[in-house]
Amino acid sequence: MNIALDRDKPIPLARQIQAHLERLIRERLLAPGMKLPATRELAHSLGVNRGTVAEAYEELVAAGWARAHVGQGTFVTESPGAPGASEPRRTSGGLPSVDGDLAAPAPLAPAPLDWPALLSRSAQIIAAEDERARTLVSAATSNPAVISFAGGMPDSGLFPTDAFRRVLNQVIRDEGASLLQYYPAGGYPPLRRYLSTYLLRFGLEARPEEILIVNGSQQGFDLIARTLIDQGDTVAIEQPTYPRALQVFRSFGAQLAPVPWDAVGPRVEVFERLLERHAPKLFYCQPSAHNPTGLTLLPETGRRLLEVAVRHHVPIVEDGFDGSLYYGARPAVPLKAADVHGVVIYIGTFSKILFPGLRLGWVVGAPPILERLQAAKQLADLHTSALIQAAVHRFCERRLLDRHAARVAREYARRRALLLTALKRRMPAEVTWTEPQGGFSLLLTLPPGLDATELLPAAIERGVAFTPGAPFFMDGAGAGTLRLSFSSVAAGRIDEGVRRLGETIKAARPRPRGRGRLEPATVPVV
Amino acid sequence: MNIALDRDKPIPLARQIQAHLERLIRERLLAPGMKLPATRELAHSLGVNRGTVAEAYEELVAAGWARAHVGQGTFVTESPGAPGASEPRRTSGGLPSVDGDLAAPAPLAPAPLDWPALLSRSAQIIAAEDERARTLVSAATSNPAVISFAGGMPDSGLFPTDAFRRVLNQVIRDEGASLLQYYPAGGYPPLRRYLSTYLLRFGLEARPEEILIVNGSQQGFDLIARTLIDQGDTVAIEQPTYPRALQVFRSFGAQLAPVPWDAVGPRVEVFERLLERHAPKLFYCQPSAHNPTGLTLLPETGRRLLEVAVRHHVPIVEDGFDGSLYYGARPAVPLKAADVHGVVIYIGTFSKILFPGLRLGWVVGAPPILERLQAAKQLADLHTSALIQAAVHRFCERRLLDRHAARVAREYARRRALLLTALKRRMPAEVTWTEPQGGFSLLLTLPPGLDATELLPAAIERGVAFTPGAPFFMDGAGAGTLRLSFSSVAAGRIDEGVRRLGETIKAARPRPRGRGRLEPATVPVV
Repeated sequence: MNIALDRDKPIPLARQIQAHLERLIRERLLAPGMKLPATRELAHSLGVNRGTVAEAYEELVAAGWARAHVGQGTFVTESPGAPGASEPRRTSGGLPSVDGDLAAPAPLAPAPLDWPALLSRSAQIIAAEDERARTLVSAATSNPAVISFAGGMPDSGLFPTDAFRRVLNQVIRDEGASLLQYYPAGGYPPLRRYLSTYLLRFGLEARPEEILIVNGSQQGFDLIARTLIDQGDTVAIEQPTYPRALQVFRSFGAQLAPVPWDAVGPRVEVFERLLERHAPKLFYCQPSAHNPTGLTLLPETGRRLLEVAVRHHVPIVEDGFDGSLYYGARPAVPLKAADVHGVVIYIGTFSKILFPGLRLGWVVGAPPILERLQAAKQLADLHTSALIQAAVHRFCERRLLDRHAARVAREYARRRALLLTALKRRMPAEVTWTEPQGGFSLLLTLPPGLDATELLPAAIERGVAFTPGAPFFMDGAGAGTLRLSFSSVAAGRIDEGVRRLGETIKAARPRPRGRGRLEPATVPVV
Repeated sequence: MNIALDRDKPIPLARQIQAHLERLIRERLLAPGMKLPATRELAHSLGVNRGTVAEAYEELVAAGWARAHVGQGTFVTESPGAPGASEPRRTSGGLPSVDGDLAAPAPLAPAPLDWPALLSRSAQIIAAEDERARTLVSAATSNPAVISFAGGMPDSGLFPTDAFRRVLNQVIRDEGASLLQYYPAGGYPPLRRYLSTYLLRFGLEARPEEILIVNGSQQGFDLIARTLIDQGDTVAIEQPTYPRALQVFRSFGAQLAPVPWDAVGPRVEVFERLLERHAPKLFYCQPSAHNPTGLTLLPETGRRLLEVAVRHHVPIVEDGFDGSLYYGARPAVPLKAADVHGVVIYIGTFSKILFPGLRLGWVVGAPPILERLQAAKQLADLHTSALIQAAVHRFCERRLLDRHAARVAREYARRRALLLTALKRRMPAEVTWTEPQGGFSLLLTLPPGLDATELLPAAIERGVAFTPGAPFFMDGAGAGTLRLSFSSVAAGRIDEGVRRLGETIKAARPRPRGRGRLEPATVPVV
């Protein structure tokens, strides 16, 4: 600790030290509960007697800023707001207050930097997006009385936390020293080998060296964007789609050209017209377990998309979510499985099937592009934690992931079925929705004239939350849609949540127009 | 698993399945040791009888491609190179070989994508850098007979692996479910609070909300570069410096303008002239524990650098390494500690003092820029593993880090002293070197006319390795320098390593010119 002491001032050194520490505690720079430096240490580093520091500490204790624990040292008092702690008295002892002299925070000099003016184009784009996002009502609510269909994450109540703790223990014991050292950027070799075999289940053949380990699929988007996108490039992208994918490509200065989904996948003829006119650098899509709709493209659509991409020499970035979470007879076949030409870059993740917080995913690509993605990864953060990779590998190798995946897939299938049943039963006639074949959510379309963002406050008031659909679309489309995630809503609360949502929708349209015919559950495209 | 079966072919289905699996094993798409799918599962997914799959598996076992373990299933044979495994026989049983028909890998269609032509400017820059790096002899050698001063990493023999395992266990037990879920981008709040207090030791005052958790300092560089640098911007940068920092700024299209170090820090008058002429977007430096020299700038130099930066409205990016690793009377005071104007962005890391493999670091900055860095972090990979953050926090809070840091600082100080003693004793007269005040390494300057990259093969032949200095410099400077890291060389091998290096240098100059005067240990600037 570096305290500027003024030995020419008439104020005793102990008082100067005390006042400085008091300011640090008040401004929470010294956090509640923190141990103060040992008196001997601090005295040494300030070049004063140990008694001087001890005196300062005693004053801090007397004033309630700190507590002394015999044999342990002196600790900053717990937050005044915390239970059992009292607001420190501001002055104490017989010494005059020097608060005004010394303990007041130094006035911050006027900032000579105009940070917003210094931002890169990329940072300016992100700042503008953030600004836009702020105008959206946040669907996240911490009120437990609200049934929230807003969170698109796995249910942490289903996490195999303890089993994971055990494998983590084992791998640290077995190979801790090498896992905690710097590690090659490509990833933990046994995990790459495991994934090579794992992906065969979905018909996807990739050698270990064609697989790059990344920090979740988000880093996959980022590395692909920085490796392929320059300012002003066009990116073709499915609509609706995952908002953070939109954001990443935008932040690299891409112009986005939407390819709308219908019930069988992104519309191939729109895709082809787009390739003819705009020569995009890549096409991004989620062919299976699509977020937000939960739809899966038909194999025939996949074949046609691939064929068009090959003919126009355009890479496809396939966001694979997780193939194990499907609700039909068998998992969807990834585009990458039919990619004999190597035009598909496939992104996979452990975030949905295991733990989002691990930040662990992978990218599969042809060697010439995978090598470049790996170089970008190395510059971005050297490598992904080898410890986490090894633990997940051990977890998979012991077939714990398979067991876990089967268990959660059953549970999510149950919740999905409950949600669909409740919607059929409780939604007004003009409401339509997609039937998810994978993933965690579906997209619901409100009756004409209703706006999901405007509806949300009323919904929360009735005790239900959702994600407005607009951010999943470009150019202001999707205002009449909303996403319902069923993955983290307890089965017993789903019907009640849908009931509340139905009432919210009905109340928003007190005089419904004549019932229209129910359209097939396709995604509206504006 | 997705096997295309042809029911019209005269080849039995079992044989088709076997041939397909055989190919996958041969191409290592099914990795050695992997369990094959249960016969029931595979039969179901292929729509064949279970007996058909069982027959295929038996053939694989008979041919040596797989092994059956009673009650456990069928596993791919361990690698033919592995001990105890024999080369699988290529044909078996009474069945005709269909290798040519079915099991040969499908010929890869010609790639319709010209990946190099699709690369972004950034990726092209990285590719060119990689190409340049390949022309350097790699100093890494796995031969244990070679004493390697090349690795700039902490000694994994000193890792507190077991203590870390225990805290990791505790935090998963205590709060596993929330730590393994998605987490806010800023970081684990208790860790940010701890760092706020920890940094006070070095005189650096930062509120928790002015601290962003990142994946090691490398991600800090990356986020700062993408937030401040556009193609064509100038970046002022100390010379010599950490090569990966150079690379990151280059990859964002920056022009680099070097500010040479002398014995007291980057030369302020060069810095000021540069600011006047080029208006760089930022200045990058490592004021303490400088890599490669180990030097620390004088406080007076720091004050002058800051003053110039403020006057010219240029942010300073301070790479803080770790303040606990110092070899003088007290730690260096970071530039950030005197930064009343908020122009310094400080980067810290746990990689040097704890474990590099955790990928855990932090960035301190004024709120307007920290907010933008956090937004960039969120797009880059959402957040850093909260589990790792919580474990490190627990480790610090229990004062295990302090204890560990004291222990390793002593050991590194010992190795540094041994290295300096050995150099004094064993180096030819024209060799000079820096005296590290922090960090893991020093920079040595060879006698005139010697090139470190050219010297390396001869050094390795004599059983010693180092890192040539050129990559730490821009524009081809530094060829006559090399970096010696003492952090991961066992104390008992240092003198012998230096002896071998001395002999290598002497042998490279069989007829030394007249001894020049020993210059003070400053860094040569070309």
